Amino acid sequence: MKIFKTRCEFQRYALELKRSGKSIALVPTMGFLHDGHMSLIDIARKKADVVMVSIFVNPTQFAPNEDFDRYPRDFDGDVAKCIDHGADVIFAPEPGEMYDPDASCWVEEVNLSKPLCGRSRPTFYRGVTTVVAKLFLLAQPDYAVFGLKDAQQCFVIQKMVRDLDFPIEIIPAPLVRDSDGLALSSRNRYLSADERSRALSIHRALLAAKAAISADRNAMAAALEKAKAEITAAGGRVDYVDILDCATMEYPLAGSRQVIVAAAAFFGSTRLIDNEIFEI
Amino acid sequence: MKIFKTRCEFQRYALELKRSGKSIALVPTMGFLHDGHMSLIDIARKKADVVMVSIFVNPTQFAPNEDFDRYPRDFDGDVAKCIDHGADVIFAPEPGEMYDPDASCWVEEVNLSKPLCGRSRPTFYRGVTTVVAKLFLLAQPDYAVFGLKDAQQCFVIQKMVRDLDFPIEIIPAPLVRDSDGLALSSRNRYLSADERSRALSIHRALLAAKAAISADRNAMAAALEKAKAEITAAGGRVDYVDILDCATMEYPLAGSRQVIVAAAAFFGSTRLIDNEIFEI
Repeated sequence: MKIFKTRCEFQRYALELKRSGKSIALVPTMGFLHDGHMSLIDIARKKADVVMVSIFVNPTQFAPNEDFDRYPRDFDGDVAKCIDHGADVIFAPEPGEMYDPDASCWVEEVNLSKPLCGRSRPTFYRGVTTVVAKLFLLAQPDYAVFGLKDAQQCFVIQKMVRDLDFPIEIIPAPLVRDSDGLALSSRNRYLSADERSRALSIHRALLAAKAAISADRNAMAAALEKAKAEITAAGGRVDYVDILDCATMEYPLAGSRQVIVAAAAFFGSTRLIDNEIFEI
Repeated sequence: MKIFKTRCEFQRYALELKRSGKSIALVPTMGFLHDGHMSLIDIARKKADVVMVSIFVNPTQFAPNEDFDRYPRDFDGDVAKCIDHGADVIFAPEPGEMYDPDASCWVEEVNLSKPLCGRSRPTFYRGVTTVVAKLFLLAQPDYAVFGLKDAQQCFVIQKMVRDLDFPIEIIPAPLVRDSDGLALSSRNRYLSADERSRALSIHRALLAAKAAISADRNAMAAALEKAKAEITAAGGRVDYVDILDCATMEYPLAGSRQVIVAAAAFFGSTRLIDNEIFEI
C-alpha cells in the first residue's frame, strides 16, 4: 500500500503509472470508510490495474454552519480496510495541502446541481465538482466509482466529465444499506440509538412512495406528501422529499422513464439522505 | 499533418500518444493565424515531440453584441502555415462539435479575471477557461503556449492550471508586433488603413506611460491619464488603460515588482488590446 500526502508526489506517481500503460480506478471518499465505500473499492478492483482511494474531508463543500469540524475521521482504520479490499494507493492530503491559500478557480455544474441537496446546500456541489476535478487531474484515472447513495452527486459528476471532456468512465455503484434498511453513511455515527431507529422512517417512506408511484404515476404529489408526513411523524425534520427525472433532474414529464425519489431529513442535528431510483 | 474534427477522435489520438511516451505541446488558437501564432508554434516545436494546434472560434467567450459571427476565418491558409512551422496535429472542431446542446459546466477563475478585459467583457474569461480546460483534457498536453498579447488570459490560465492541478506547464510567449509597432491580432484585418494608422497611438501611449512610470513610480495615475488622452486624441474610444501588479492583477503596491500597463480601445468598431509588462 502506497500512501501519498502531497498533490505533487501523488500526481507524479499517477503520471508514471499511466506512462507504463497501467489503468487506474479512483474511489474518492471523505474517509471513515464503511461497507458502502468497500463496495466501491471492490468494483474498482475489478475494473483496473491500480485502485486508488482518496481520503479528504473537503472544506469547500461544507457551509459554515455544517459539520466540517466534527466530521468523523479514522485514518488508521481506513488504511486497514483499504488494504483488506486490495486497494493499491491512498491519497490523503492534509487540509492545507489541497488548496493554495489564494486559490480562485471553481468548476461548476449549473443545472443538475440545482434541486434537492443543491437547493438546501447552495455551495455544496460547486465544492464537490471542484475537488473532484482536482482529484481527477491528480489521479489520472480511467475509471472513478461513485455510490448512488449520493445519486445527484453521481449525476452531476457524470455531467462534468462529459461536458469538460475528462477521459474518465464514471461507474455508479448501488447504494448499500445496513441490515435494518438504513442507508450506510459516515454520518450515521452521529445518531443516538433512538434517532437511528426513528431514521428508518426515511427508507420506509421512500419505499411506500415508490410503490404508490409505480402503481399510479398520477399519485406522485400525494405520495411525496405522505412520505414527508411519515418522516415527520417519526420525529424527523424534513429538508426535502422530491421526485425527479434522473436525466434532467426536473419534475418527471410524460416521457420520463427513470426517476429518483429522494429525501433529506434531520434526526437530531444529523442530516441524512436516501433515495430510490426506479423506472416508471 | 493530422487534422481532427471531432473531440472523440482527437482525444483518442492524444491518449495513444501519451501511452507511447510522447510529449505534447498545445497551441490553442481561434485561427486566422498570423506571425504571433507562428512564434507560439515555433516555441512549442522546441519543447515537445508532438505539436498540436487547435483552431476554434469559441462562441462561449463572445457576448451577443461582439464579433463572433464575423471573426475572420481561413482554414486552408492556417493549415499551410501550421505545416510550414512543423506542427504535427490540427484540431479544428465545427462550432456544434465542442459543446453538447445541454452543456452545463463552467470553469471559472474569480480573481485575476475581474479587472481589464474581465470588466468590459464579464463572461469572456469564463468562456476562455472553460474551453481551454476542455482543450487541455482533449489534447493531454505537457506544455501549452499562450501569447502575452493577451497577458491577462495567460495569467488566468496559469492560475487555473495551478488551482485545478492540471499537469501542464504554461509557457507565456512574447507579444509580436508588426514593423510599425501594432500588436499582431487577427482582428487587425477589420481596420481601414486610416484606422490602423491611428491605432498605432495605443502602443505609443503605452510606451510613454512605461517610460514615465519607470522614471517615477508615483507618476502612475498621471501617466495613465496621459495615455488615455493620447489614444482619444488619435480618434480611439478608450475602454481602459490601467496598471496592475502582474501577480495579483490589483493596483500596484509598494512591494510590487512586475507590472502590466494594459490598454483596450476601439478604432471604428474594432476593439484592440495591447500591453507592456515591466519591472518597477
